[in-house]
Amino acid sequence: MPDLLVPELLDRLRTEPPLVHCITNYVSMDVAANAVLAVGASPAMVHAREEAAEFAGLASSVVLNIGTLSPPWVDAMVQAGQVARERGIPIVLDPVAAGATRLRRQACDRILDVGVDVIRANASEVRALAERGLATGRGVDATDSVDDARGAAEFLARAASCVVAMTGARDLVTDGERTFEVVGGHPLMAKVTALGCALSAVVGAFAAVSSSSHRMAGAVTALAVFAHAGRKAGSEAHGPGSFRTAWMDALHRVSPDDLARVPVRPLPIEPA
Amino acid sequence: MPDLLVPELLDRLRTEPPLVHCITNYVSMDVAANAVLAVGASPAMVHAREEAAEFAGLASSVVLNIGTLSPPWVDAMVQAGQVARERGIPIVLDPVAAGATRLRRQACDRILDVGVDVIRANASEVRALAERGLATGRGVDATDSVDDARGAAEFLARAASCVVAMTGARDLVTDGERTFEVVGGHPLMAKVTALGCALSAVVGAFAAVSSSSHRMAGAVTALAVFAHAGRKAGSEAHGPGSFRTAWMDALHRVSPDDLARVPVRPLPIEPA
Amino acid sequence: MPDLLVPELLDRLRTEPPLVHCITNYVSMDVAANAVLAVGASPAMVHAREEAAEFAGLASSVVLNIGTLSPPWVDAMVQAGQVARERGIPIVLDPVAAGATRLRRQACDRILDVGVDVIRANASEVRALAERGLATGRGVDATDSVDDARGAAEFLARAASCVVAMTGARDLVTDGERTFEVVGGHPLMAKVTALGCALSAVVGAFAAVSSSSHRMAGAVTALAVFAHAGRKAGSEAHGPGSFRTAWMDALHRVSPDDLARVPVRPLPIEPA
Repeated sequence: MPDLLVPELLDRLRTEPPLVHCITNYVSMDVAANAVLAVGASPAMVHAREEAAEFAGLASSVVLNIGTLSPPWVDAMVQAGQVARERGIPIVLDPVAAGATRLRRQACDRILDVGVDVIRANASEVRALAERGLATGRGVDATDSVDDARGAAEFLARAASCVVAMTGARDLVTDGERTFEVVGGHPLMAKVTALGCALSAVVGAFAAVSSSSHRMAGAVTALAVFAHAGRKAGSEAHGPGSFRTAWMDALHRVSPDDLARVPVRPLPIEPA
Repeated sequence: MPDLLVPELLDRLRTEPPLVHCITNYVSMDVAANAVLAVGASPAMVHAREEAAEFAGLASSVVLNIGTLSPPWVDAMVQAGQVARERGIPIVLDPVAAGATRLRRQACDRILDVGVDVIRANASEVRALAERGLATGRGVDATDSVDDARGAAEFLARAASCVVAMTGARDLVTDGERTFEVVGGHPLMAKVTALGCALSAVVGAFAAVSSSSHRMAGAVTALAVFAHAGRKAGSEAHGPGSFRTAWMDALHRVSPDDLARVPVRPLPIEPA
Repeated sequence: MPDLLVPELLDRLRTEPPLVHCITNYVSMDVAANAVLAVGASPAMVHAREEAAEFAGLASSVVLNIGTLSPPWVDAMVQAGQVARERGIPIVLDPVAAGATRLRRQACDRILDVGVDVIRANASEVRALAERGLATGRGVDATDSVDDARGAAEFLARAASCVVAMTGARDLVTDGERTFEVVGGHPLMAKVTALGCALSAVVGAFAAVSSSSHRMAGAVTALAVFAHAGRKAGSEAHGPGSFRTAWMDALHRVSPDDLARVPVRPLPIEPA
């Protein structure tokens, strides 16, 4: 079993910067593009139905984020996802506010039908998707607990055959079998908009430089980058404005050694 | 008559963070969401016709901003506004460049027909709306003066049955009967894009924590938050870049005591 | 022949701030609007087909950027461009990722058919447009070399009858006859998203204050502003976050004297 945190992925990313195709929400476009650039990869925001699928074929990974949704964008996400899936290009889904409206639930259904490699979400969104899976009978296992967020994440990972990176008060990464906690960050991260969306884009960057059998390693490494940058920026900031500035600097300056010091803890298997 | 500046509203907002549903322009999405977060509330940017009305029903307040307009967004604003109106959820209108094009004039007409609780605008926009009201005969009072911006604001407040918060060289809040000036801010605020839009979103946050009979107090308190943060950031900044950073920090750190020190002056009633 | 760097244009811009109408991509809206404000002009982001042409008639210049493209926006760009062209309002084109998809190629064709005054692009985009011109036989000159980016820029300037400002590792401005290099900037500029888009908007601001016979001077001056601000911010920054802050401050503080010190070198004429 490979080590779950792979600092060397950072070198690989910076040596051959992947092109991360993002169909993401308006709020996050600036901060997500800047985070991808700061880490060392190349972002491209391309959303029109008339070019999203064509562009996905040129990309190293595809990130689908439903934050500011509209039906033509969902179409573009599905079309870009289909091309990516056919060609083995990894897909990251960020199901922003997944349970809030019918449009969002339907968008997630359509994207999950295409298939994704990583879901990056908060606990509420993970629960909404897991309950959706239960409702539609997709991979239901009666022993799964979705009462707690960890259980929901593990269930969702199995049901959708993907890695789930759940961030918030705790950051967990699971493939449904093994679950790891990544420790770090800072409370001010919750006071800057779209940092979760930016993380999803950076998860896309690391998915592009990790093979399909190392999706967990890619996601854990991305979360470790954020955990380190958040902790460092939090120690310097006077509020969310200076936090964002210091955090962007820290993303740019993070080294494999910094990553090697971020605690990644395997969680014990819970009784079913 | 209640005190017009209510520092305690800030505690209330931070204790039970309202969900501020914004249909706002692309330019302002990042800074408006961050300002709402920094103050202590929760922003949500949701604009599609397919979900805006549904989402408005979940919100504590609705902010409609016509900055980067298109017909489907106007439809969504009207639909979200109708749901908010039915349920007593306060609505803030930011009529960006209201008089510049026919699309903007028509959008404002449609939104004002739904009804709003607060209009946050600059002097030109207030004048454009007031003249529009005069032209359509909506609540015209021949004694009203729209030659000066204060008169236009007071006329508009009466004609639209709402509070008008007019910001710029002077910041005024009026319900058409009483008018108050909020003193503070800094000239660099005019050199950072979308701070007015961010203020409108923060007015929405304070509208959510003040009852319908205290709309003036909510608007005055929001303007006092900006007046304080602007003054503080202006004393530290070297230009609009560092101003924005310091201002966001100041929004996060503002205290009820800081607010209590912002001068709010009742303006004498002018002869008609 | 006028001096190619005209520091006095900065005073002119600040004395009578031009209104720069931008139809630009979502990623760049915040940073482009802020850069235009910081330099001293007024930005307006207006994209809907229902108002773009009407608004262009009110503007001092029009900036068309195809970064996050969709067919209705291309229509709006063409319509705004036609009004601007009829009235002698200068047009700047930023052909983001011009060669990547059919939608982008077609958008550039349509906008170039309207005609533009300045193209601000990176080397790949210049090459894509130049090759497009060769393919369609638009102004082909068999002696033109598009093998190197300078040759492509000079060819494009002649074929499209405009000034080409090509930025990247080297910054060149050419009208197809004379070519100048602007020296400055900093490698961190490539680590902040949409600075090229922001530059295109600032090129629009300077195009508005320079007559049609001085398009080269306007473009060179805009590039000199960026070269100065980039160099200054780079000397202070710890990463892309603090770079962006310091760079925005430097745009605001740049003086004609600062500009006069930016090296602008005429390049020797190359053998055909």
